[in-house]
Amino acid sequence: MTFSFPYSIGLHDSDAAGVVFFASLIRICHQAYEAFMESVGFGLGKIIQERRFGLPVAHVEGDFKQVMRVGDKVEIRLRVAHLGRSSFRVEYEVMLNNTVAATAATVHVCVNPETYASMELPPELRTKLKSKN
Amino acid sequence: MTFSFPYSIGLHDSDAAGVVFFASLIRICHQAYEAFMESVGFGLGKIIQERRFGLPVAHVEGDFKQVMRVGDKVEIRLRVAHLGRSSFRVEYEVMLNNTVAATAATVHVCVNPETYASMELPPELRTKLKSKN
Amino acid sequence: MTFSFPYSIGLHDSDAAGVVFFASLIRICHQAYEAFMESVGFGLGKIIQERRFGLPVAHVEGDFKQVMRVGDKVEIRLRVAHLGRSSFRVEYEVMLNNTVAATAATVHVCVNPETYASMELPPELRTKLKSKN
Amino acid sequence: MTFSFPYSIGLHDSDAAGVVFFASLIRICHQAYEAFMESVGFGLGKIIQERRFGLPVAHVEGDFKQVMRVGDKVEIRLRVAHLGRSSFRVEYEVMLNNTVAATAATVHVCVNPETYASMELPPELRTKLKSKN
Repeated sequence: MTFSFPYSIGLHDSDAAGVVFFASLIRICHQAYEAFMESVGFGLGKIIQERRFGLPVAHVEGDFKQVMRVGDKVEIRLRVAHLGRSSFRVEYEVMLNNTVAATAATVHVCVNPETYASMELPPELRTKLKSKN
Repeated sequence: MTFSFPYSIGLHDSDAAGVVFFASLIRICHQAYEAFMESVGFGLGKIIQERRFGLPVAHVEGDFKQVMRVGDKVEIRLRVAHLGRSSFRVEYEVMLNNTVAATAATVHVCVNPETYASMELPPELRTKLKSKN
Repeated sequence: MTFSFPYSIGLHDSDAAGVVFFASLIRICHQAYEAFMESVGFGLGKIIQERRFGLPVAHVEGDFKQVMRVGDKVEIRLRVAHLGRSSFRVEYEVMLNNTVAATAATVHVCVNPETYASMELPPELRTKLKSKN
Repeated sequence: MTFSFPYSIGLHDSDAAGVVFFASLIRICHQAYEAFMESVGFGLGKIIQERRFGLPVAHVEGDFKQVMRVGDKVEIRLRVAHLGRSSFRVEYEVMLNNTVAATAATVHVCVNPETYASMELPPELRTKLKSKN
């Protein structure tokens, strides 16, 4: 995997069953995606402010194999698994104690930020994403 | 209290200690505020889209007296406790089984949505808020 | 679809792109699932407190077709789409203005709440879920 | 201030007004508290699992002075501002570009994790907290 994001499971990630709430884990993967995008010069804050394009999530999937608890130190490994003309797929592995505790994927579509009509990925972003898959 | 908002405590509101996470309760009070604002014709979605003014939270406080658990049916009672020229204070009581399980307050400041400079509350909003305090 | 859950999109569900954050939508579907489970006599709070079994999410997927904004009134329609020996799949449609704005699914596995070993669904829960698929 | 916690504002922390959602900022301060507690040997995961005592938040307050946006790098500085027999107060400063963008405080009460009756802070925790105020 191309990019690594360390994370410490917090109380706000957990629920009354005593473990990580599944939707929190999806959000944590997205935090890894945000760190990745920033690392290639396309931080989401900048993308939102420039309003040249948007990259909403069109699809998400996740598989949860192992329980995670408050205080667990995990590592999210991600890579760009598919790069299309106007979309790309990011895949995640959540590692706990050298085991894959969960996997996830998000598909991001490049859109006009006003109309949400699909558009081609900007070439400079494509180049960056290509180098990471 | 002027406005009542029913809420069922959800799994995502809880944490691994088995009870409601305190910041979730603050968010639940804000959901009551949103329902209240919509009831007086100033839904936050509309305010954000019209961009005539913003009402960010400048201050929050909360006191948590009783434990709440997943599935608990609570009622949030709110009122406009103070109405200034460019700000107002909303107070909340979270009722569980006819007891005040928590109290909270938010202070909202009316600002220019671009510059965040303070501005006077629009008269039509002031009138609505006045009728509720 | 078997069960209907009304929801008003809140500020805390949205993000700086101006629309619903995708992971919030997954959480909203889970809120619909919680209301459904309670309606068949298996509220999650009760399940967690009794500690006879747990129903963690083992898989999630979601497809986001249309933008949703703060104040939008949506309806989540859900049904039990598959009922196995020790798991079941719930499918969701998020309706906005009579259009399917998003779909999602969660797979829940019945486990021993201490060991997280898979176990058969309790017969009385199975009967309830069967009547809803 | 005694303890410093760096944080990068994420998309999930923001709302449709384009800035950080106030309840997210409270949660971020709590993440700093969790990191602090872990640094003194009392990580919340451990406290929850050992069930010797609990430290629920009995009071929270926050003042938001400056807007924060997605991608902003903030630093949360915290200190133990008051140390009582069975409670303690933690104060937070959220720094953005060398300015105090927000302040917050939480009061934690030491309780029996079953009954939620107040109890004295364990001496070894008191010693750790004392060294940090």
